Amino acid sequence: MRRHSRHREELAPRAEQKQQTRQALLDAALRLVADNSFDGLSLREVTREVGIVPTAFYRHFQSMEELGLVLVDESFRTLRRMMRAAREGALPHEQLVKRSVETFVGYVQAHRPYFQFLMRERFGGVASIRSQIRSEIRLFVSELATDFARFPGADGWSNEDLQMLSGLIVGAMISATEQVLELPPRADADDVIRIAEKQLRLIILATPHWKSQPSRPQAEDAS
Amino acid sequence: MRRHSRHREELAPRAEQKQQTRQALLDAALRLVADNSFDGLSLREVTREVGIVPTAFYRHFQSMEELGLVLVDESFRTLRRMMRAAREGALPHEQLVKRSVETFVGYVQAHRPYFQFLMRERFGGVASIRSQIRSEIRLFVSELATDFARFPGADGWSNEDLQMLSGLIVGAMISATEQVLELPPRADADDVIRIAEKQLRLIILATPHWKSQPSRPQAEDAS
Repeated sequence: MRRHSRHREELAPRAEQKQQTRQALLDAALRLVADNSFDGLSLREVTREVGIVPTAFYRHFQSMEELGLVLVDESFRTLRRMMRAAREGALPHEQLVKRSVETFVGYVQAHRPYFQFLMRERFGGVASIRSQIRSEIRLFVSELATDFARFPGADGWSNEDLQMLSGLIVGAMISATEQVLELPPRADADDVIRIAEKQLRLIILATPHWKSQPSRPQAEDAS
Repeated sequence: MRRHSRHREELAPRAEQKQQTRQALLDAALRLVADNSFDGLSLREVTREVGIVPTAFYRHFQSMEELGLVLVDESFRTLRRMMRAAREGALPHEQLVKRSVETFVGYVQAHRPYFQFLMRERFGGVASIRSQIRSEIRLFVSELATDFARFPGADGWSNEDLQMLSGLIVGAMISATEQVLELPPRADADDVIRIAEKQLRLIILATPHWKSQPSRPQAEDAS
């Protein structure tokens, strides 16, 4: 999966090796934070794990913080790719929910260290990483709201309400992610999948009955 | 709020002072983890903050881990007290949702350091604290499911579905908590309250349309 794409073959071996070391540093950091917080991880530990001298780190990243931000970026890039693929497949409505939840949970299980990193560092000690993860999640919620806006029944929905709906769904998927990560690595996640699927179906059941009002009804606040 | 109850007055001054130092250690730890993870916090820092020698720590707690577990316990005890009070007040249905969300968000704002600690340490580096927080949340979900079981429309609902419903609601409240904690300390949380209220109302809208089936329909898995 981490092979370089074809146009990279013309690169000099040195550049190629540099790219490999960079990836090795990212992988090592991800391995090392499996059970510890990122701000507790030292540059020295990461370079030792890869087998290079500490100063060589700076040929690849300006700081541990930069490395962390690249990890956030990597995590969301692959997640977005998966979601795009899911969006393109057309399935009957009922099956769509079940299949989406299964695909997502399978994806979390296959990329466990990335999700462990994201879930934890969302509340971690490095402010820039924390806010990067949060803004990626917000972006995710917005993209999903845009998807919903195209659904047949959505014409009467305000933007705020579409965001509210997708926020609720993303929240349920984040809960499911947390539960999957609590399970041992190769454990059966059927219970988590079944509950998350029911939660999404329950939310979907409500949508035809929702009366969306213009965004931000400030007047209501006063009462 | 932290005064001793009346029956404590007979305590000798020394015991009283011990209790005060213990509380000072808890408060100091909570202050110090506002921006850092608990496993990065040293016993030495906490005792320095309180102004006692490091070895004196052990008169109050066996370890930093024990102190952390007491913080988890304190956080959930007050939260449970608030929920019990909310349960006893009887309000019309529509108002109930709004009022509950407002009360909860106000509570989070008033006890910010506790919630910051809980949200972060749920994924933190100390396994016992992590699992204690998670089991308290699970307990919370179960208690809420028991409340729902008493509602008029709930007779046809399986236990699993009641848990699924309360899990969804607790998840939405956890998301709201995260958003409140992202705001500056005394910022207006009206947007968070309005969205969370809508999410709860949307969920409630679905409940009359849900067809609950017997728990764990294993046969469905095979398809």
